[in-house]
Amino acid sequence: MSHPPTPYLRVDVARLGANIDHAAARAAAAGVALRPHVKTHKNLEIARMQVAAGASGITVATLGEAEVFVEAGFDDVFVAYPLWVDDRAAERIRSLAQQSRVTIGVDSVPGATQAGRLLGDRVSALVEVDSGHHRTGVPPERAAAVATAAAESGLDVGGVFTFPGHSYAPAGGAGAATDEASALAIAADALRSAGLEPRVLSGGSTPSLADSDTSVLTELRPGVYVFGDAQQWELGTTTPDLVALSARTTVVSHTGDRIVVDAGSKVLGADRAPYASGFGRLPAHPDARVVQLSEHHAVVDLAGAPLPPLGSRLDVVPNHVCAAVNLVDELWADTGGELVRWPVAARGRNA
Amino acid sequence: MSHPPTPYLRVDVARLGANIDHAAARAAAAGVALRPHVKTHKNLEIARMQVAAGASGITVATLGEAEVFVEAGFDDVFVAYPLWVDDRAAERIRSLAQQSRVTIGVDSVPGATQAGRLLGDRVSALVEVDSGHHRTGVPPERAAAVATAAAESGLDVGGVFTFPGHSYAPAGGAGAATDEASALAIAADALRSAGLEPRVLSGGSTPSLADSDTSVLTELRPGVYVFGDAQQWELGTTTPDLVALSARTTVVSHTGDRIVVDAGSKVLGADRAPYASGFGRLPAHPDARVVQLSEHHAVVDLAGAPLPPLGSRLDVVPNHVCAAVNLVDELWADTGGELVRWPVAARGRNA
Repeated sequence: MSHPPTPYLRVDVARLGANIDHAAARAAAAGVALRPHVKTHKNLEIARMQVAAGASGITVATLGEAEVFVEAGFDDVFVAYPLWVDDRAAERIRSLAQQSRVTIGVDSVPGATQAGRLLGDRVSALVEVDSGHHRTGVPPERAAAVATAAAESGLDVGGVFTFPGHSYAPAGGAGAATDEASALAIAADALRSAGLEPRVLSGGSTPSLADSDTSVLTELRPGVYVFGDAQQWELGTTTPDLVALSARTTVVSHTGDRIVVDAGSKVLGADRAPYASGFGRLPAHPDARVVQLSEHHAVVDLAGAPLPPLGSRLDVVPNHVCAAVNLVDELWADTGGELVRWPVAARGRNA
Repeated sequence: MSHPPTPYLRVDVARLGANIDHAAARAAAAGVALRPHVKTHKNLEIARMQVAAGASGITVATLGEAEVFVEAGFDDVFVAYPLWVDDRAAERIRSLAQQSRVTIGVDSVPGATQAGRLLGDRVSALVEVDSGHHRTGVPPERAAAVATAAAESGLDVGGVFTFPGHSYAPAGGAGAATDEASALAIAADALRSAGLEPRVLSGGSTPSLADSDTSVLTELRPGVYVFGDAQQWELGTTTPDLVALSARTTVVSHTGDRIVVDAGSKVLGADRAPYASGFGRLPAHPDARVVQLSEHHAVVDLAGAPLPPLGSRLDVVPNHVCAAVNLVDELWADTGGELVRWPVAARGRNA
């Protein structure tokens, strides 16, 4: 088929498959479960590739995402989020639990009590612990209080989980992996002391994946690894020749010694981590930087390279691929020449 | 109807109407055209309110946006972007021009020549000039070369336009408005010297709107003014009691002396200008700051205020409303109690 107008997000299916296989092999060799976070791609085709490669189930962030994937036949879903389960959320979770194994996150006594009261043992719960990212989750030594409240209110307590998000820093992966294992071990011990034997010690993030302590963890939940992005490139956890998603753009303006391409924050996302060197990276021009980004313009400093002509095409790798994918209704999967439309089935399912 | 699950974007229709009327009155009093940029809301209902209040037409950023609005009956559209008009873009523009008056941006001799060759006088063109934002646009004294190329290739040259985007800085509005008027005046004179009489001198941005020099400009193209957002609040160009859009969220976690709500970058957007004090603002807690943002979590420091209970609702105003709106399939319009679904009709139309 003919190519869509720019900007569009293109997936290199060969690289995608290699990235999926690489993580699957790592988990299999270590004897731990791989439960990929599908918020990265929100796409049924890719989730099916992950399951075919051995994923034990999927991770989602919201009930809306869970509904899309369960409706499509996925039957083991972990909502890795401390949901506040009100009556309507409970109704949705009960409906999901009729079609799939469902696990939710809890990180407070009131939240766990409320969830148990409305859900009973239809669902499992994992207690979220904070391993250093300082977002949600209780300190590991306090995991038993939440787990006990969950169990007493009727939930099946499966164990503990964490997101070592402080791995998103230069050379942050190894330290975050150490913190992750330590926090999960302490939390698991706390559960055992309270008479609750944890089956699951779940962690994982793409920057910490290579360093995850699989002598402690039973499950890994990376998301970004399927594509990679400019953040991973700059963190050193991937290389440009492995990155499987980029925005195809058109050069629309020459402005002095810079160019402007037609991909802005509405297709690349506006994420810019403190360590990011710009708003995206260009595989064909490793020294170039996206120095200015607005909704439909990326201003690129080509670091002295000759300016590509107006109307020519350039690929830009977004900083944070989860954000980019969630901006488009479809990905264009390049299977080696042909472009196939892959709907972003769970796009915008924030609730 | 019952409220949707959080997070969702809620529009205060009374405030929206007041904001629309305020800008319309300013333009009418000054005797200039108001051509609002609809990329902010991408919504037919709001664009109709703007036209009903006197807007002379609409501004869009992409052909995809133009197609949505022209299909819905809008008949005077300016694509304020230096489009690279290839064969397929030309076909789309010709189709638009059968239903609507169409104006496009040009900022290079090759771009203008190419557009003219494929479009002829079916469309008008405005030459984009750089008034200080340093994104696209030619220096004003070079506008005549582009205008001449456009005219010689067959386009109807309507005049000149600029986006004074450097108004997005603390106290930046007045200076950007001065630069805007100066650049447009110089460019218009350059066109006249080349024998081309400009009908349109178009500018405008929300932060510079109050200072726009309407003795020079013939047209204003603000977008954000309909809603306002945390950026405008922090720039001082709106106040929290006028902001017409916010994300309704649920408190899902207490983490030390902070709370976490369920609106992250996938509903608020990740924009953070250098002058922003956080990732969004809370009208009910003006001293609070969103200190950490991930895809589905906003960590809020409430500056010592008592923590709202888990499960309670809080409104968060996004930093950049154009980005937030483009993340959702619908806005929920609060007409004074009832919530009405307003589709984001041009969501994701990046191409």
